[in-house]
Amino acid sequence: MTTGSPARAALIALDWGTSSLRAYRLDGTGRTLDTRHLPWGIMRLPQPLQDGAATNALSGFELAFDQACGDWLRAEPSLPVIACGMVGSAQGWQEAAYLDVPVDLERIGTLLTKVERPGATPVHIVPGLIQRHGLPNVMRGEETQVFGVMFDQSRAPDHHPADSVLIGLPGTHSKWVNARRGRVTHFDTFMTGEVYAALRGHTILGRTMADAPAADMAAFERGVKVAGSPAGRAGVLSTIFSTRALGLTGDLAPASQADYLSGLLIGHEVASLAQMLRQQGEQPRIVLCGEPALCQRYILAMQHYELGTPEQAQNATERGLWHLAVCAGLVNAAGAPSITSSTASA
Amino acid sequence: MTTGSPARAALIALDWGTSSLRAYRLDGTGRTLDTRHLPWGIMRLPQPLQDGAATNALSGFELAFDQACGDWLRAEPSLPVIACGMVGSAQGWQEAAYLDVPVDLERIGTLLTKVERPGATPVHIVPGLIQRHGLPNVMRGEETQVFGVMFDQSRAPDHHPADSVLIGLPGTHSKWVNARRGRVTHFDTFMTGEVYAALRGHTILGRTMADAPAADMAAFERGVKVAGSPAGRAGVLSTIFSTRALGLTGDLAPASQADYLSGLLIGHEVASLAQMLRQQGEQPRIVLCGEPALCQRYILAMQHYELGTPEQAQNATERGLWHLAVCAGLVNAAGAPSITSSTASA
Repeated sequence: MTTGSPARAALIALDWGTSSLRAYRLDGTGRTLDTRHLPWGIMRLPQPLQDGAATNALSGFELAFDQACGDWLRAEPSLPVIACGMVGSAQGWQEAAYLDVPVDLERIGTLLTKVERPGATPVHIVPGLIQRHGLPNVMRGEETQVFGVMFDQSRAPDHHPADSVLIGLPGTHSKWVNARRGRVTHFDTFMTGEVYAALRGHTILGRTMADAPAADMAAFERGVKVAGSPAGRAGVLSTIFSTRALGLTGDLAPASQADYLSGLLIGHEVASLAQMLRQQGEQPRIVLCGEPALCQRYILAMQHYELGTPEQAQNATERGLWHLAVCAGLVNAAGAPSITSSTASA
Repeated sequence: MTTGSPARAALIALDWGTSSLRAYRLDGTGRTLDTRHLPWGIMRLPQPLQDGAATNALSGFELAFDQACGDWLRAEPSLPVIACGMVGSAQGWQEAAYLDVPVDLERIGTLLTKVERPGATPVHIVPGLIQRHGLPNVMRGEETQVFGVMFDQSRAPDHHPADSVLIGLPGTHSKWVNARRGRVTHFDTFMTGEVYAALRGHTILGRTMADAPAADMAAFERGVKVAGSPAGRAGVLSTIFSTRALGLTGDLAPASQADYLSGLLIGHEVASLAQMLRQQGEQPRIVLCGEPALCQRYILAMQHYELGTPEQAQNATERGLWHLAVCAGLVNAAGAPSITSSTASA
């Protein structure tokens, strides 16, 4: 956690998910002045004091909010606040809409949900996206990262506005988002990260695993390859059992089993993705956005499945929150470039 | 639990897995006289008393064994005892071998591991099977069910010894075992049951599920079909998220979500199996063996994926234990038929 800086700010931006809360203090150009990382995800908020006298006790959301940015707001009370993520879910502070895909990204910024806080600064929550055609799908928070990535793309010197881009957001629930000309056209979800944690923590596969002093990337790559091998055709429900069987035959050390399992799961995800792209006859530009060590695993898998080496986007969440605040008119950014036209990005 | 019967027994047979222990008292023709079901799986044995005076306290295995069949043995001390399952694993009473696949089933009965119990009846543990070609695979306990099923098949009036048969053993870890002429040639494992429990109990998918008064088989069949639909091509890591998304769009009630998820997982398993069989150009006879309600789910999925309606085997474990005891010479069954020849099954 960093302490407040004397520089003037223009926006407070919150990335408020299930398990953590990140707060950004941004200046009038969208530059990050301060960042804070708190453990107050919406599923583990601080507990309000509940003694008899405190009938007006602050809610867990208010307590977390105050720790995240109360001092910033007391120093500059007129700062607007924008937030994205599960804070806008039915279990969040206030439910924000889902916008139907396909959707123009800039439209997202015009449809924020306002949490009124009597006598205090309101919080503007970014809507999620919902895809109703085919098997339905939803996202909350990732739309903001996509916005940040697309904005960045629009500024790239070799940008062609008609290009389609596939944005990969690896994590607990990986999202793969197809976008074109500032418009999200389709997305897929893979529960890879959460399935990995559940298999490791709550099945027999975790029982034979030992902690490793460092990542075993050879075991990871072995898992990636198995996913696409003839034995991999049985699917992930079958291949994961080899984590245990290879241990029993002495072919996979306990300290290597977690990384092998990670390789299997990410391998199956990326192999499916590669097959879908082949069937669609598409080879879009691919941009990855996420935690660097995890992105490195996806890059290895994408190289193995002949998807090339993707670009990597940095700081997409805070950039997305900034530009959504511009779209919403929360901050004054006269002449701010549009993401739908490359000519505006000069 | 039933109490002892005055009828003379010939064998005590134990099916001793990770989470439970079944004990059978069988007569000289292999008929079941008594059955007991105890919660003493090898991972949750009864706790030995540990006071200072009891330095010779019985182990958890001995305590469970005594509860399962101590009175049967006191009534007829010369009865032999055979056991299969995880009791023969490295975490079991005594580690029993794995036999390499391909293997003749009758060979299994000649390679039992003997747990010596000074002054008491020894316990003979059935070996497991291991497959070392391709991705390795193991089983412990299911080899005994396969033995029981194959023995039953050899007695079927339309039996052709050269027929290949695919034996499905749905459960925590589903096994699909290819056998021909009394010989196990190959097997696959799918962790479907354990993955279902982990997803339901330890991921976001369980959070929106509500208990149902009865199984929702329409939701189950919907999941089965999604696994083979165009959206299913993304694989199970992706389709499972639709359990949540369909709930958010109001298209899947909370009380239907668990059965939908069950359908997705079993659907992916059976779809993979059907694809592998097509690639091998095989259409073997299929025999299912397992808990009846679970088998019913697999039958629906197999019908959807055009694998026909499988036969169902009953009491395969106790039948397998009996015939393994015959092979091992633990019981006298002069003229007992062989499973490798149909002429011996008259």
